[in-house]
Amino acid sequence: MTAESLGSEQSRFVADVAAKLNGFLGVQQETMATISPDVAPLMGSITSLVTGGKRLRALMCYWGWRGAGGESAHPDIITAGCALELFQAAALIHDDIIDRSDTRRGGPSVHKRFSQLHEGEGWALDSERFGHAAAILTGDLCLSFSEEAFTEIGSRAASGTAARRIFNLMRAEVMAGQYLDILEEVAGPVRDRAGAVDRAQSIIRFKSAKYSTEHPLALGGALAGASEELLQGYSAFALPLGEAFQLRDDVLGVFGDPGTTGKPAGDDLREGKRTVLVGFAINQAAADDSSYIDTMLGRQDLGEAEVAEIRRIIVDCGALEATEAMIEELSNEAFEALERLPLADLPLTALRQLAEAAVSRAA
Amino acid sequence: MTAESLGSEQSRFVADVAAKLNGFLGVQQETMATISPDVAPLMGSITSLVTGGKRLRALMCYWGWRGAGGESAHPDIITAGCALELFQAAALIHDDIIDRSDTRRGGPSVHKRFSQLHEGEGWALDSERFGHAAAILTGDLCLSFSEEAFTEIGSRAASGTAARRIFNLMRAEVMAGQYLDILEEVAGPVRDRAGAVDRAQSIIRFKSAKYSTEHPLALGGALAGASEELLQGYSAFALPLGEAFQLRDDVLGVFGDPGTTGKPAGDDLREGKRTVLVGFAINQAAADDSSYIDTMLGRQDLGEAEVAEIRRIIVDCGALEATEAMIEELSNEAFEALERLPLADLPLTALRQLAEAAVSRAA
Repeated sequence: MTAESLGSEQSRFVADVAAKLNGFLGVQQETMATISPDVAPLMGSITSLVTGGKRLRALMCYWGWRGAGGESAHPDIITAGCALELFQAAALIHDDIIDRSDTRRGGPSVHKRFSQLHEGEGWALDSERFGHAAAILTGDLCLSFSEEAFTEIGSRAASGTAARRIFNLMRAEVMAGQYLDILEEVAGPVRDRAGAVDRAQSIIRFKSAKYSTEHPLALGGALAGASEELLQGYSAFALPLGEAFQLRDDVLGVFGDPGTTGKPAGDDLREGKRTVLVGFAINQAAADDSSYIDTMLGRQDLGEAEVAEIRRIIVDCGALEATEAMIEELSNEAFEALERLPLADLPLTALRQLAEAAVSRAA
Repeated sequence: MTAESLGSEQSRFVADVAAKLNGFLGVQQETMATISPDVAPLMGSITSLVTGGKRLRALMCYWGWRGAGGESAHPDIITAGCALELFQAAALIHDDIIDRSDTRRGGPSVHKRFSQLHEGEGWALDSERFGHAAAILTGDLCLSFSEEAFTEIGSRAASGTAARRIFNLMRAEVMAGQYLDILEEVAGPVRDRAGAVDRAQSIIRFKSAKYSTEHPLALGGALAGASEELLQGYSAFALPLGEAFQLRDDVLGVFGDPGTTGKPAGDDLREGKRTVLVGFAINQAAADDSSYIDTMLGRQDLGEAEVAEIRRIIVDCGALEATEAMIEELSNEAFEALERLPLADLPLTALRQLAEAAVSRAA
């Protein structure tokens, strides 16, 4: 009974968000068409990016709203979901430039799409540079759209509301967190090794946990007028959940199956990501192995043999085990906090399912 | 009398915007400090960038507001000026990455500041890549701040208001215009030469004229409740003014004195900007000279001799003269439209002064 109504309600919300995104981008497309047909690829990139995805953030927001007594299928929560999806698309576009990731969900990333357009058309100068420039602008446009959608909510998201404060904080924190992430890639090798795990944990808190789970859930709650107490309860659940989610992502970034993740194996290692997993390895591995990781991380030309060797070190020194134990611990913390939440059956079950999917996924 | 009160009123507004920016960024800095002391350079870059500048957009907005009957020193117009300055800073940060400009107002651009930080600290991996990544994130943060400030205006800028529509349109159009600009750099050489001037004019309309003058003036007017008729009158003045302003900028980008502009001589040529000035040259110069420009544009290694040769071609074929004539014509159109505006003496004089400074500046 509950499972059935939950599934259909959730599917309906996802469909409503998709329809709203479609309508919103359709209106934007009309404006763009008055400027020049040449700008179509910017809109095409954004549309294609918001079409896929797990919609984790929109769903967290939805159940945060429902848990706080918001009506199902209310236009405000659909619009909020739409704003979160647009923000995520903007973040992914710029992220992929920063990480030099040429693939996204099994297809070319936005900067790669523009490089390919350049090459296909036989344009002058450098195709890669054009790709990066066009993707910076596409991400900026998408970031503006996200805010435009959020403002469409109207009075519940107006200046001074709790929802607006959460939305602003979410954006600032994820950008700061991303910066800490790229900083650790370059500064990590010359900073103290003992602090590597702590720094990596701080990074995932801001760039991922707060952004992917804590803030979306709180945003939904705030839009429905949740009490401060409920918001604190949400946070006690969503923050450890988000950390576990990102730790799972980090494990998949090194050990995931490319066929399932849609990313080449070992891409996180080539990007030089200094994750908690890597932090444990650097601290626990023998000196030689630890130096090997330090030398190899961030090398674009990392081959299969090197990736396999780094994996071996991570497994043998117990870093994978330590990370899995941390995921387990954070998951338990999240699920215990979830059961303490004063929620009706439906949102409680929905959040439990989302949480289970987040920490046990393979992609 | 008028000159004196105008000067003091304008100085007061500029000081109010600076103080508001200071307060706004101070609050943001407190949030950032709770994340990590490592994120300080992001805030430092933004603060340093909004400290300088001509404040053209904020002033257009102010006099648009005053012309439509808005009170002097009203908090809403100060906040709007602040939002425009933050938006401009965000645009400059990403622009400088796109154009590979290492200098901004005589100092290092943001991506260059981060590269220098990387080198100074002796960090690992590539300093240039780190600089670009950090500047993408700093621009994103600044873009979010801009919107956050704009929303602080409250009801006059709420969802559905004319001011919000203008702000949204301004952002979308400038990003689309920037894309057309980088597209022309790469696609221009293989597109028809006869259309080069028209395409360059369309680019400056969207990336510059609408953004720098038309929309800020309309925004101020809309915030003060201007009639549709007044907004149309504003546009008839500000659009040709903005085009003349950008044409002047393009001339300075090739012929300007580096000591005054704060940019190396010929930087626009190295960036491969296909401006109206260049479009005229490609159409009017002899075939050899035209091909020379096509070959040299966008080459990062362009030396003084090549820059001098391109200048010679631009002058000899009459492209400079044609561009100056266009500036003259657009200026006349703008000033005539200005005199038709039903404005009080003070805003009329102020807009006249701003317009004169915009089209006759040397930097």
